[in-house]
Amino acid sequence: MHLLAAATALPGPAIGNDALAGRLGLSAEWVEMFIGTRTRHFAVDLAGGVGCLLADLCEQAAVRALERAGRTVPDLSFVVLATATPDSLMPTTAAVVADRLGAAGIPAYQLQSGCSGAVQAFTLAEALLAQEPAGSGGGPYGLVLGGDVCAKHLDLEQDFRRMPPAQLVNYVIFGDGAGAAVVSSAPAPGSAAFHGLGNRLALPGQPPGQHVEWYGAADRDSALPPVSEDYKAVECLVPELAQRVCADLLDTLGWSAAELGYLLPPQLGGLMTRRITAALRERLGVEKAVEISCVADTGNTGNALVMSQLEQLLPLLTPGTRALCACVESSRWISAGFALEAS
Amino acid sequence: MHLLAAATALPGPAIGNDALAGRLGLSAEWVEMFIGTRTRHFAVDLAGGVGCLLADLCEQAAVRALERAGRTVPDLSFVVLATATPDSLMPTTAAVVADRLGAAGIPAYQLQSGCSGAVQAFTLAEALLAQEPAGSGGGPYGLVLGGDVCAKHLDLEQDFRRMPPAQLVNYVIFGDGAGAAVVSSAPAPGSAAFHGLGNRLALPGQPPGQHVEWYGAADRDSALPPVSEDYKAVECLVPELAQRVCADLLDTLGWSAAELGYLLPPQLGGLMTRRITAALRERLGVEKAVEISCVADTGNTGNALVMSQLEQLLPLLTPGTRALCACVESSRWISAGFALEAS
Repeated sequence: MHLLAAATALPGPAIGNDALAGRLGLSAEWVEMFIGTRTRHFAVDLAGGVGCLLADLCEQAAVRALERAGRTVPDLSFVVLATATPDSLMPTTAAVVADRLGAAGIPAYQLQSGCSGAVQAFTLAEALLAQEPAGSGGGPYGLVLGGDVCAKHLDLEQDFRRMPPAQLVNYVIFGDGAGAAVVSSAPAPGSAAFHGLGNRLALPGQPPGQHVEWYGAADRDSALPPVSEDYKAVECLVPELAQRVCADLLDTLGWSAAELGYLLPPQLGGLMTRRITAALRERLGVEKAVEISCVADTGNTGNALVMSQLEQLLPLLTPGTRALCACVESSRWISAGFALEAS
Repeated sequence: MHLLAAATALPGPAIGNDALAGRLGLSAEWVEMFIGTRTRHFAVDLAGGVGCLLADLCEQAAVRALERAGRTVPDLSFVVLATATPDSLMPTTAAVVADRLGAAGIPAYQLQSGCSGAVQAFTLAEALLAQEPAGSGGGPYGLVLGGDVCAKHLDLEQDFRRMPPAQLVNYVIFGDGAGAAVVSSAPAPGSAAFHGLGNRLALPGQPPGQHVEWYGAADRDSALPPVSEDYKAVECLVPELAQRVCADLLDTLGWSAAELGYLLPPQLGGLMTRRITAALRERLGVEKAVEISCVADTGNTGNALVMSQLEQLLPLLTPGTRALCACVESSRWISAGFALEAS
């Protein structure tokens, strides 16, 4: 499968640490220092009210990605959207976006997924493209979307002074956004080929590192917080799993770490991403590869993160350049990743 | 792709119309007459409290289906779960169930989907199986799950005397349950082959016929009901779409309606299912085909419905027997279906 184009859409203006930390009664320096995120975008207004829907962001990203790929909606054989935070349970945001785009008569699948969701969606897209006959003018083509609007799951009416740090951190680590990629069975000018695309359940029996309740912040009577994370487990296990993903990909493909041009690491927060990249460099023998990450500017946008990385990466590639991407889903542990090679 | 086995799991005892209607202040005769559902099962107690999770039901159904197929968890290449009502947003119920089953090292996908979800999951399973190498002792194998626990989205603390009928009907039409199917690229004794498996967005621009809000009944302040349906649109459009699905399948496969052994119609409620089947018989020229439905006994179990139909159907098949299944998702309209032919 070949990646033809990628694009993203972020809601509203970037929100800096001063504005966010001020709203939450935290210090901006603390956010910068311990999370490593400088800005993020929210689909809700900090003063209250919903600014935009996941469907809005997905639609914008899809239009941009199709334009960059030089394709139109009738070229598509399917749409796959990966998200942890759909606008409603039914109808699916995938179907709403596909309908808005005018994509009638094709399937629109929606994956419920976290940080490895974009890779899960690409894996399904590869399998679906293989079922389609080759098009006369190139193709077949598929549209892969990934996005999250986490902010609506966080209750801005709470008394943040009384919130424990393990819960408060969710307000500064996440950001909202969506991304889109156009993929095809056939290469095109400027495209890159996927290799070793896959995802798998990891760490059998390991308790979930993250919970997002389906009712979100709406249930104020609940004894459970709408979003909770075990950051110690995440900090400890994500680097280890990411390293295994990269080592397995290099091994399977017979590639050398030293010749990699780019590395797309898992992105929990800016600080952790820098740490993971450093560990990957050291342990795998990565030499010249440039880190491609966005989390310091966008916050953790969940299913949109990989799309942001691909949007940055694609214009940088020259024929033969190789890149590795690793993702780790910490809710019920999933390892995922792929390699890319520019055509 | 071949269907090797199917099984279902329903929570608690069957709840009759007397018990349910009494709780809601309705007449049991009204439910019987206008909905056509006699019993259903709920994952919550009518007196309050959660009886079981979707993950519990999926796990039970999976164990039964694997046993019937004579396979074990290590035989599986993947798990796909289709549901509109996951236990939490993260971790996914698919990953939780796969972990409980001991399915480490394989992907677990979760589709957000409604009444056509089982067909969407089967379509993805077919594409995923095609990517897998043939196993030495048969296979590859995949586990497809479909289920819903709608009852938790309905607020049993409400004053039902003040609820409009369009909302009240949701309390009598749905039921909870889950089903599982074991599928393979290779046939096995007693298996049936899928033909023409597919799903597509239908009726471009048509407003959604159903909304299920992501926060469910938890947000009592919301102006919007957690579940709402446009039953007039559903009643009008589902039979029409179901007929098109069946006609297209017969046409594509070159099959005659007269020789069909079984018909698996969409199942909104018992009454409507009988009406749709009658319309299909008349318009398509179906002669001897026996209707396979479960909704009068289980209520509308969403993503589990097709699994219940397949569980009923499979033991009835003799070599060469043909069956058609049609599904319509009314939230953002999707047509889906497949044909089965016994090996």
